[in-house]
Amino acid sequence: MTSGRLPWQAVSGGVLGESVEAFEKKVRDSFNRQPFMSTIGAEMISVGSGRVEIRFPFSSKLTQQNGFVHAGAVTSIMDSACGYAALSVAPEGADVLSVEFKVNLLAPGAGESFVARASVKRAGKRLAVCAADAFAVRAGEEKLIATMLATIMNMDSNPPDPGSGS
Amino acid sequence: MTSGRLPWQAVSGGVLGESVEAFEKKVRDSFNRQPFMSTIGAEMISVGSGRVEIRFPFSSKLTQQNGFVHAGAVTSIMDSACGYAALSVAPEGADVLSVEFKVNLLAPGAGESFVARASVKRAGKRLAVCAADAFAVRAGEEKLIATMLATIMNMDSNPPDPGSGS
Amino acid sequence: MTSGRLPWQAVSGGVLGESVEAFEKKVRDSFNRQPFMSTIGAEMISVGSGRVEIRFPFSSKLTQQNGFVHAGAVTSIMDSACGYAALSVAPEGADVLSVEFKVNLLAPGAGESFVARASVKRAGKRLAVCAADAFAVRAGEEKLIATMLATIMNMDSNPPDPGSGS
Amino acid sequence: MTSGRLPWQAVSGGVLGESVEAFEKKVRDSFNRQPFMSTIGAEMISVGSGRVEIRFPFSSKLTQQNGFVHAGAVTSIMDSACGYAALSVAPEGADVLSVEFKVNLLAPGAGESFVARASVKRAGKRLAVCAADAFAVRAGEEKLIATMLATIMNMDSNPPDPGSGS
Repeated sequence: MTSGRLPWQAVSGGVLGESVEAFEKKVRDSFNRQPFMSTIGAEMISVGSGRVEIRFPFSSKLTQQNGFVHAGAVTSIMDSACGYAALSVAPEGADVLSVEFKVNLLAPGAGESFVARASVKRAGKRLAVCAADAFAVRAGEEKLIATMLATIMNMDSNPPDPGSGS
Repeated sequence: MTSGRLPWQAVSGGVLGESVEAFEKKVRDSFNRQPFMSTIGAEMISVGSGRVEIRFPFSSKLTQQNGFVHAGAVTSIMDSACGYAALSVAPEGADVLSVEFKVNLLAPGAGESFVARASVKRAGKRLAVCAADAFAVRAGEEKLIATMLATIMNMDSNPPDPGSGS
Repeated sequence: MTSGRLPWQAVSGGVLGESVEAFEKKVRDSFNRQPFMSTIGAEMISVGSGRVEIRFPFSSKLTQQNGFVHAGAVTSIMDSACGYAALSVAPEGADVLSVEFKVNLLAPGAGESFVARASVKRAGKRLAVCAADAFAVRAGEEKLIATMLATIMNMDSNPPDPGSGS
Repeated sequence: MTSGRLPWQAVSGGVLGESVEAFEKKVRDSFNRQPFMSTIGAEMISVGSGRVEIRFPFSSKLTQQNGFVHAGAVTSIMDSACGYAALSVAPEGADVLSVEFKVNLLAPGAGESFVARASVKRAGKRLAVCAADAFAVRAGEEKLIATMLATIMNMDSNPPDPGSGS
């Protein structure tokens, strides 16, 4: 299901032709319909088969009591990146839903911008397991600040009824 | 260290006198210095010894592609609630830092408001383990939508140097 | 330290009639086909609807380098207890599979026996979320030593082909 | 499916001289004092700076109800591998303690043997974050069956008093 290609920057963009563009379009369209990503200033910077990068610039609106970026903001782009990495390899017509994730916070969120890179570790019929790392970027250097391990579920593309659960 | 009182709504407010007010003041002061909480419209609605409640009203700015509140927003208030629950029982002068957390998403974020309730499960000298549940509130009814298990570290109250880690 | 005994122990046994006995039989039959539980000396001490208790006595065979019980042994009974709690409420004919779990270790595994108590936090059509606490028992007193949050999947009762995944 | 062999196996053994041998001896000595590892038939197959491999052969004593190896057995070697990876880079005289871990189970435990490979993702003064993958080996091929993300704490080498916590 997932290609297993690892130097994943290479596949972003449309170089692999129509099938790449189909999944990339699906992912970017969904991302663009996430107002929360826009609220925190996040943009999707690359989409590959089974891999997604999302970034936001530092903003004082996103900080906690010590002036660092709040773990919740970093977690938000890691969660979206994991979900979209799973969506990029999901069966046609399927939507995805985060079942659960775990985050380790490794260093304070200090930087000019923050990037989350997610990749699919295993894609099954119903569940995908994704991993994401988040980096703070300062003066062109990246520092690992958080890491996520997440479980994503494939589901029908009809959004769930607001009263129902997973 | 942690009192183990369980009907915890009873202790919020100042009824237990000065020592309660000291920890409550510490927690509320720190919360008020978290711009990200204000960005997502969150307010701290109660503080007890080892327990904290944080709430935000629904806003379309916080939604994902299906119109539900983004898991990242709900996670953010659960994370802050866990951290502040730990801070409420931390040694005087200590600050707290989230080491890691795990979230299970149980139902879509559909409601008029969202509340996270965190309590300390075990407080050690250096580490506290906290649990939080998040609820969607609709027509006066609460529905469990997410649950968190988190590890929080006590540290000196001087904020860490932006270059350092945990 | 205190007993932490939950009201649900009252429902173990057959007092609720035939439907209880059906799920209890299903759970106990499956447990008895887990050689690993027998290897670590574990027994199922109660089964309720959505709740299971598993226990093992201390044995030096289960210890780590400091003489405490290994986290892996405690995790094993928490995992089985979560799985069987989910199985007790799963649709007829369904088997269950652990998708993932997270464990916080709260105190050393020192005691005469160790008990894991799991309950279902939310059961959906395909996934259940369960929580378990593990206690060390010494001189009749229980001390909380670990806690788990787990995701369990319902699947057809035919065991998966050894070559396939989730 | 493929081997997944990591470049770090090259450093096991004593090729890097005395300092390597010191940490390797510390790790192997501690591992040899874990009766539970011997109970499940586990052996440490390599130790590098910040990386450890532990393996056990299939045994019907370790299985669950469908004949696959129990998740608890696989988790046990991943936990030990993470702890020892952290110990290999811990300050001299320090011992380590698992604070928490999260495991995703990716495929049934079907194979002739099972290997856990752990590496340190970030080592701080007090806490280390480690990741481990577990593989089932069949006919010389490895298949990824589980993955762990763990937090390990450095502590004084005196074992904790059995009554105390973290």
